[in-house]
Amino acid sequence: MPYDDTSLKIASLASLDAGLFETDVLLSWRLSDAGIRAILLAAELLEDLTRDGLSTRLFENGLGLSIFRDKSTRTRYAFRAACNLLGLATAELDESTSQIAHGETVRETATMVGFLTEVVGIRDDTYLGEGHRFQQEVASSIDDSYRAGVLMQRAAVVNLQSDLDHPTQTLADLRHLAVLFGGLERLRGKKLAMTWAYSPSYGKPLSVPQGVIALMTRFGMDVVLAHPPGYDLVPEPLQQARAFAATSGGRFTVVDSMEEAFRDADAVYPKSWAPMTTMRRRTDLLRAGDKAGLAALEREALDNNARFKDWECTRDLMAKTRDAGALYMHCLPADVSGGSCQSGEVSAEVFDRCRYDTYRQASYKPFVIAAMILATRFRDPAAALDRTLQVSPSRRHG
Amino acid sequence: MPYDDTSLKIASLASLDAGLFETDVLLSWRLSDAGIRAILLAAELLEDLTRDGLSTRLFENGLGLSIFRDKSTRTRYAFRAACNLLGLATAELDESTSQIAHGETVRETATMVGFLTEVVGIRDDTYLGEGHRFQQEVASSIDDSYRAGVLMQRAAVVNLQSDLDHPTQTLADLRHLAVLFGGLERLRGKKLAMTWAYSPSYGKPLSVPQGVIALMTRFGMDVVLAHPPGYDLVPEPLQQARAFAATSGGRFTVVDSMEEAFRDADAVYPKSWAPMTTMRRRTDLLRAGDKAGLAALEREALDNNARFKDWECTRDLMAKTRDAGALYMHCLPADVSGGSCQSGEVSAEVFDRCRYDTYRQASYKPFVIAAMILATRFRDPAAALDRTLQVSPSRRHG
Amino acid sequence: MPYDDTSLKIASLASLDAGLFETDVLLSWRLSDAGIRAILLAAELLEDLTRDGLSTRLFENGLGLSIFRDKSTRTRYAFRAACNLLGLATAELDESTSQIAHGETVRETATMVGFLTEVVGIRDDTYLGEGHRFQQEVASSIDDSYRAGVLMQRAAVVNLQSDLDHPTQTLADLRHLAVLFGGLERLRGKKLAMTWAYSPSYGKPLSVPQGVIALMTRFGMDVVLAHPPGYDLVPEPLQQARAFAATSGGRFTVVDSMEEAFRDADAVYPKSWAPMTTMRRRTDLLRAGDKAGLAALEREALDNNARFKDWECTRDLMAKTRDAGALYMHCLPADVSGGSCQSGEVSAEVFDRCRYDTYRQASYKPFVIAAMILATRFRDPAAALDRTLQVSPSRRHG
Repeated sequence: MPYDDTSLKIASLASLDAGLFETDVLLSWRLSDAGIRAILLAAELLEDLTRDGLSTRLFENGLGLSIFRDKSTRTRYAFRAACNLLGLATAELDESTSQIAHGETVRETATMVGFLTEVVGIRDDTYLGEGHRFQQEVASSIDDSYRAGVLMQRAAVVNLQSDLDHPTQTLADLRHLAVLFGGLERLRGKKLAMTWAYSPSYGKPLSVPQGVIALMTRFGMDVVLAHPPGYDLVPEPLQQARAFAATSGGRFTVVDSMEEAFRDADAVYPKSWAPMTTMRRRTDLLRAGDKAGLAALEREALDNNARFKDWECTRDLMAKTRDAGALYMHCLPADVSGGSCQSGEVSAEVFDRCRYDTYRQASYKPFVIAAMILATRFRDPAAALDRTLQVSPSRRHG
Repeated sequence: MPYDDTSLKIASLASLDAGLFETDVLLSWRLSDAGIRAILLAAELLEDLTRDGLSTRLFENGLGLSIFRDKSTRTRYAFRAACNLLGLATAELDESTSQIAHGETVRETATMVGFLTEVVGIRDDTYLGEGHRFQQEVASSIDDSYRAGVLMQRAAVVNLQSDLDHPTQTLADLRHLAVLFGGLERLRGKKLAMTWAYSPSYGKPLSVPQGVIALMTRFGMDVVLAHPPGYDLVPEPLQQARAFAATSGGRFTVVDSMEEAFRDADAVYPKSWAPMTTMRRRTDLLRAGDKAGLAALEREALDNNARFKDWECTRDLMAKTRDAGALYMHCLPADVSGGSCQSGEVSAEVFDRCRYDTYRQASYKPFVIAAMILATRFRDPAAALDRTLQVSPSRRHG
Repeated sequence: MPYDDTSLKIASLASLDAGLFETDVLLSWRLSDAGIRAILLAAELLEDLTRDGLSTRLFENGLGLSIFRDKSTRTRYAFRAACNLLGLATAELDESTSQIAHGETVRETATMVGFLTEVVGIRDDTYLGEGHRFQQEVASSIDDSYRAGVLMQRAAVVNLQSDLDHPTQTLADLRHLAVLFGGLERLRGKKLAMTWAYSPSYGKPLSVPQGVIALMTRFGMDVVLAHPPGYDLVPEPLQQARAFAATSGGRFTVVDSMEEAFRDADAVYPKSWAPMTTMRRRTDLLRAGDKAGLAALEREALDNNARFKDWECTRDLMAKTRDAGALYMHCLPADVSGGSCQSGEVSAEVFDRCRYDTYRQASYKPFVIAAMILATRFRDPAAALDRTLQVSPSRRHG
């Protein structure tokens, strides 16, 4: 990477009025366009420097704290890697040995574990109507204690997946698209099929499709959302997608046919999710501790899923995309028919051909998370990166 | 913070004959006055530097190891933050997957996990008569292996709460008092009420009241310990408190009335604990694995607690303190009446008004722990801090 | 340590054609002699620098990932310490909350957690025929994704104990022997008794004896393997031991008498293990989930062990070694008769006298692991160490 290229990118980053300093990253649709562009550009710079073996250690010390209210390997690792990239150590708040509940308890705990914390990453996607609220509660608790002078710095809360959005995933997706299509500007008019797909499991979060439609419409893409009847998403991101499409000159349509969505698509994102109504009932049953009700709901939901087994990304369907060569996207792990399951989201044939594409898509996530930390914790991220280049242009490996 | 102020503090730290190098911090009453002053001053310097965004990374590498034999969120975090502040990575010894017992096993394990370890933080407060003994055992094992040339450095053991004392808490408390009253010297003659308070739980450790009375009496405070009949503390810290009061010109009295303790108090510390005799019986029953006996003891103890529900820190009681404005202290989490429990240590009204005071009190803990590491692991802590200032006066954030 | 001594060692390291860059450390017998010598020399240099308080922080950032499929305190700690020594943060892949199975799942997960990973340490010793295979699978997955351009760097897989070998242990053992006997060259002709010993437990891995016989024979030692009838090792390391002895001018013999093995031995390594055939049956039963079969096998195996209770390292047996003063070796923890168990591998008398020897033996492990990381991740490890010396000759402690 030539140094002048880096300098140009840093200058470009400096010119963006991101407005992210001392804020949180909870919902991509609450960020400004400049904010999103700043995160993507910072992610690209961090990749460049890392590929060149240059240090991106911007913090001398400080902690990145994670709270996982759902299982996670990949995002847990990506958050840790992102923190490490910037010089932060990580700690995980284990809610089995420590209690984070709601209200005053959240306020107190968030402060107690915030004294030297720079970022708090939270995954809370199990309960529809709860995850985003909890993330907001942690953020406002930190903010209060910071303004009261109890905390020395205003740690950022980064949404590592909530019931509403999954911005670390979707911004990595957006970066992936930008790399493959030659830049954010080239996404204008490109057709993206965000479609439901069959899975033998139930209760998958809605955050990815919701985040994808509300993000890609901002960049002028022709976003088609496809799902069987009943598999509706939450209203807020749907409204956002419509509004963004109108503003950006993109399009947003909802159809009930996978084939229609795939027709002439430049990129396809076939992925299972649970219907919003199922997730709402599930939340109520979980709260009520109604095990019989949960078992009944699961049976009902799986039976309903099974009616749409033909919602599978196959070679025949891929053949209908633009030049039969659409980019296949997935946030992983995918339910691969004849692979991880008997019948699932995608045929083994398609998945095997596109495997490394999905790995590449995932590879952007640590850098996107690091960019979010950089953008929220540094008043002038461009200057911070520039300083690093000046001070320690040492290569990691001989 | 002006640089000359820092320089003065560093010079002041250098002038103290702390005698802590290559020792442990187990019981505050075994430390010299200079040792305690050195820890407080080092903590203050670390706060100053951190607030100024200056690096306090005194270790290039090395590990801080923690052993938690009781649940912990706050102290676990504080230890991790303290290690991180100085550049140490942390590891936690999980006794469920690894066995630390007694005797030779302790000696061997302490050595095996000590090869590159600079500090071992231990919480062991469940069994009266056991926690301090275990901490001593780990410390002497490390010492033996160091003297035998097996370990390259003599890691310090830091008591993160034992059955006898909780010095990381009480030194943070002392720093809090010093900040609010204008310095350690201004504590002379100030009245501190360390009182029992009602809690609907049972088996709370005695370490905080024991540590508080044995520490604050050293600085000339008028310490009043109040508890209902039977809620006695362990003899050793009581004797220490009496002796320190005699030496320092302070006072130490024990009363059986919360109201009497609060009268004209400058600071109040209402907090529940279990009677020493209950804790002794509990230890015996736990050792014997007598579940029925434990259940009976719990019922008996809770019934006895319930006789003293009026030991609650209320607005009326606070009104009896000096100018009705005593500092409310708590090590958190507090049992707040009408908040975390129906009836507890403190009324919601008092707690809500003093919430940020308790957060501030807690905020000193990471720095106090870091100061203990600094004081035990560096022959000349003042010189080490000074060197950091010379070498890397870089700000963390632009 | 005089600087010119370090310089000589660095020059010596530079002269070795180790061939380890961008490879893995899975089986010591697949490494070249130069590779083994390079790891030992690098370990020695890292010890020297650490003892002198000089920084060995060769990485600015990056992760060391560990996967433990069996309990571990010591190796877990040693891996973490090794990573920390070089500047890597660590993360542990918890397979209870995240699934690593076989096939495509391994390939995908290894990539997903590999984006900024420099080393993956794996312990997988429970299933005979599985552990090494799994380690190979992770290594080839990383290699594939690296070659496909998905991963920026080719993380090394380091075997932290498999069903076949335990190279981090045996190279630490070799370093211990070299230190005590005055260098690798002095090991020529020295007699090492690697013998089975009685233990009241069952199912201990075969990796240590297998690794020891296949490694020490390469350095011209007279290695005697002793075990009761039936306690056979896996064929591959036995063949390797024979071949290495032939090449190096050493000897390798198998006997069925502890006493014969001890006669005139310079070093003894009495340690229990399970017969290969028992381990094979155990693997089949575990796979089949046959609990009754496992219980029956355990009884049978323990009964069989009990026939050889006299395979205990006692003072009388030690008296038969060279000058009654052989070095007692153990990978720890040992089953000490009258100590950790009633009747075990070694008498309390012998163990107590040799305790610190075993601690010293263990002390080399963190440095050996760090040396493996250095040798696999740096094209020119000698230059990397030299650069560290030039750049930051700062002492950790004043």
